[in-house]
Amino acid sequence: MNDASIERCHLTHLECSLTGDVYPAHSRAGLSAAGRPLLVRYDLSAVARALTKDALNGRPADMWRWRELLPVRRTENIVSLGEITTPLLESPRFARRIGAPGPLLIKDEGRLPTGSFKSRGLSVAVSMAKELGVTRAVIPTAGNAGAAFAAYCARAGIESFVFCPDDAPESTIAEASLFTPHVWRVNGLITDLAPLIQGGKRILEWYDMSTLKEPYRLEGKKTMGFELAEQFGWELPDFIFYPTGGGTGLIGMWKAFDELEAIGWIGSKRPRMVAVQSRTCAPIVRAFQAGHSEAAPWEDGFTEVPGVRVPWTVGDRLILQVLRESEGFAIAVDDGAVAQARIELAASDGINLCPEGAATLVAYRECVRRGDIPDGACAVLFNCASGLKNPVPAPTRHIDRHHAVDYSRL
Amino acid sequence: MNDASIERCHLTHLECSLTGDVYPAHSRAGLSAAGRPLLVRYDLSAVARALTKDALNGRPADMWRWRELLPVRRTENIVSLGEITTPLLESPRFARRIGAPGPLLIKDEGRLPTGSFKSRGLSVAVSMAKELGVTRAVIPTAGNAGAAFAAYCARAGIESFVFCPDDAPESTIAEASLFTPHVWRVNGLITDLAPLIQGGKRILEWYDMSTLKEPYRLEGKKTMGFELAEQFGWELPDFIFYPTGGGTGLIGMWKAFDELEAIGWIGSKRPRMVAVQSRTCAPIVRAFQAGHSEAAPWEDGFTEVPGVRVPWTVGDRLILQVLRESEGFAIAVDDGAVAQARIELAASDGINLCPEGAATLVAYRECVRRGDIPDGACAVLFNCASGLKNPVPAPTRHIDRHHAVDYSRL
Repeated sequence: MNDASIERCHLTHLECSLTGDVYPAHSRAGLSAAGRPLLVRYDLSAVARALTKDALNGRPADMWRWRELLPVRRTENIVSLGEITTPLLESPRFARRIGAPGPLLIKDEGRLPTGSFKSRGLSVAVSMAKELGVTRAVIPTAGNAGAAFAAYCARAGIESFVFCPDDAPESTIAEASLFTPHVWRVNGLITDLAPLIQGGKRILEWYDMSTLKEPYRLEGKKTMGFELAEQFGWELPDFIFYPTGGGTGLIGMWKAFDELEAIGWIGSKRPRMVAVQSRTCAPIVRAFQAGHSEAAPWEDGFTEVPGVRVPWTVGDRLILQVLRESEGFAIAVDDGAVAQARIELAASDGINLCPEGAATLVAYRECVRRGDIPDGACAVLFNCASGLKNPVPAPTRHIDRHHAVDYSRL
Repeated sequence: MNDASIERCHLTHLECSLTGDVYPAHSRAGLSAAGRPLLVRYDLSAVARALTKDALNGRPADMWRWRELLPVRRTENIVSLGEITTPLLESPRFARRIGAPGPLLIKDEGRLPTGSFKSRGLSVAVSMAKELGVTRAVIPTAGNAGAAFAAYCARAGIESFVFCPDDAPESTIAEASLFTPHVWRVNGLITDLAPLIQGGKRILEWYDMSTLKEPYRLEGKKTMGFELAEQFGWELPDFIFYPTGGGTGLIGMWKAFDELEAIGWIGSKRPRMVAVQSRTCAPIVRAFQAGHSEAAPWEDGFTEVPGVRVPWTVGDRLILQVLRESEGFAIAVDDGAVAQARIELAASDGINLCPEGAATLVAYRECVRRGDIPDGACAVLFNCASGLKNPVPAPTRHIDRHHAVDYSRL
C-alpha cells in the first residue's frame, strides 16, 4: 500500500522562484539562498500519463483528489479534516442591481475546515511536516491561518505555536486556542513577528510555516485553481478577484493553471487576476501602479479587513508578475464600503461573506462602475472565510408575548 | 426543460403520520387534521426505475443529487446556497483515549450554508414555498434555524419573519438579522412562540415553517440518511448519536433508510438511533425511559446547549417510535461535561464541535463507559453546526517584542 501511494507522487525538485536554482525534493525547506520562495516542481509528463479526468471524477469531491499534483508521498501522512470542494454560488440579485455585465460567482471557501481557505495550504504543509518528521511548528498570523495551522497540527500530533498581532480578531485567537495552548499576542504587525520566530527556531527547533517561507502551503492553495478549472468544465472564468494579504492563493492558482495546461487539460486562456487590498494597507496596489517589480513595505498599515492587513509579503515579486502576465490589475477599496457591501449581499442573495470576501465585492462593483468588465465576462470572487468568524452586530427588537402584538408594526 | 424536471418528481401525496389519512401533494400543508406532522410520500417503484447509483455518482456532491426523492417539481424553483455533501471525520486520538470499542466518526454538518444542518431542511422547505407561490414566511427558532431560514428566503425573494426566545444566542440572532430586518426576541421558550405566530398567520398570511408543521423541511433533513448510506458504501453505521431538539433529523433519517430499502439500495439492517438531550431539558429521555409513546412538556427547561433547549416537540411520537424500532435509546448529558468534551476533541483531533455536537460526544463516552457499544461497532455522531457559532473564550497571553523573549516559557 505504501509503495502504491509513493507511485502516485511525481515530485521532482524544489526551485527558487527568483533564480531557478534547484533544491532537493522532500526536504525541510525554507526560503531559497536568494531569500525567495521555493516552488515545488513535478514530472508533469508522468502526471499526464498517470491521471485522467475520468479517474479524477471517480474520486471523492475533495482537495486530495489532486493527489498526483500534490507533494505528499505516503497516504498515511495525509492530515485531513475533510477539505471538500467548495461551492461556486451565483449572486443574481446583487449582479442585477449593480448592472453587472456578466455572471458574478462567489467561491465560498468558508466551507473548509476551520472555516477558511487557509486549511488548503495548511493541510498540505502539515502533511509534509508529518512526512518529514517535524514534531514542533510555528506560524505568524493575522487571524485565520493560526486556527487552521493549530487544528491540523493537533490532528497530526505536532506541537504548534501561534503568534499574532495583539489586535488580531478575538474570534480567531479563541479558535486557535482550542487546538493548542501556545497562542501568543505580540505588540506590532504581522511583519514584526519574524524576528521573534527566528529566535525560537534556533532554540525550540520550530518548523516555520510562515506564508511562502516553506514550499508546501502554496501547493495546497493552488487546488483553488484546479477546482475552478474543473467547475468551469476545463475552461476558466474571465476574472478572478482575490483578497491579497500574503498572496499565496493568487500565486498558487497561477501555478495550477500552468500545470493543468502542461498536462493538456486546459488551453492557454487565463483569467485576468485582480488583487484586492484595503486603501489603508495597499503595498501591492502601490507597486503595481508604479510599475515596480517588488513592493516596498506599507508604513503604519491599518485596515478593518484583517486578512489583508499585511504590509509586506515575501511573495511580492510573484504576485506582481501574475497580475501583469494575466493582464490583471490591483485595486484598493475603502473599509467603510466593505461592511456595507456585506450587508447588501446577505439581504439580496443570502450569502454571508467574510470581510475579505466583501472587499472583493466592493472591488468588483467599482470595476463594473468604471467599465472594466466587458459584456458577458464572468467574474469569480473569493470569499476566503466563513462570515461566522466576524459577526455583524444586529439591532435588537423585542416583543412582550404577554401583551397584544401589533402585527402591522412587524 | 420544465417538463423534463417535472418528470423527475415522483411525489404522490402527503400522509398523516398518526392516522395515515391522505392529503394532496403540492399543497401549502401544515399539520394534519389530527394535529400531527404530515409525511411526504413518493412512488418508490418509479424512483427505483428512474434512479441508478451510477447516475447518482455522476452528479455534483450535494443534497440535490437526491432530486428523485425530494418534493420540488421544477428545477427553477430550487433555492440553493451550495448544500454540499458533508464530510465524515474520524477521531482516532479521542477514540483511543476513551477506549472506544470501534470507529468514532463525526458527520460535520457545520460545512453547510449558514453553518448548520438546518440548511438542508430549509433549502427544501423554501424551495417548496417558492414553488407554491408563498411571498411571506415565518419561523420560531432557538438559534440556527432562523439564520438558515432567513438566508434561503432572501435568496428566494420571500419576505421572512424570525421569532426567538430572548435568551437565544446573540450570534445566531445577529446572523439571521443579516438576511432579514424582521428578527424579534420574545420573552419565553421556543414553545411559547406558537400563539404569537398563530396570530400573525391570519393577519400577515405567513407560511409557517416551524419544525414539522409543514412537511418539506423533513425531506431536506432526511438527506443526512441518504448521505450516510452512500458514504458507508450502502451499508449503515451501527449507531447514530443525534442531538435532539425538534427531532426532524432523527425522523428524517429513518424515513430515508426506509425509502432506500424500498428502492432496493440497502438491506433491512438499521443503525441503533440514539437521541441526545441535556439533563436539564430532557422530555424525550423521560418519555422513552417511562415507556410512553408521547412526551409531556418539560417544565422550566434550561440548558446551555441551545439546540436541545426544546421542552416539547410535535414530533415526539415519531421520535420515540424511531428509537424503539431501531432498538436505540435516549440519553441525557450534563451541560458542564459538554464544554469540556469540546475542548478535549479539539486538542486531540483538530475538530471544533458545536455544543450540540459535543453533547453527542459526551453521550457516546458515557455509553462506552457503561459498555453499551459492542466491540467493533461503528458510531456516527452528528455535529449539527459549525463550532464558530459558539466561540470558546480563550486565555490571553502576551509577549512584548521589545524585550528579550524567554523561549523556555512558551
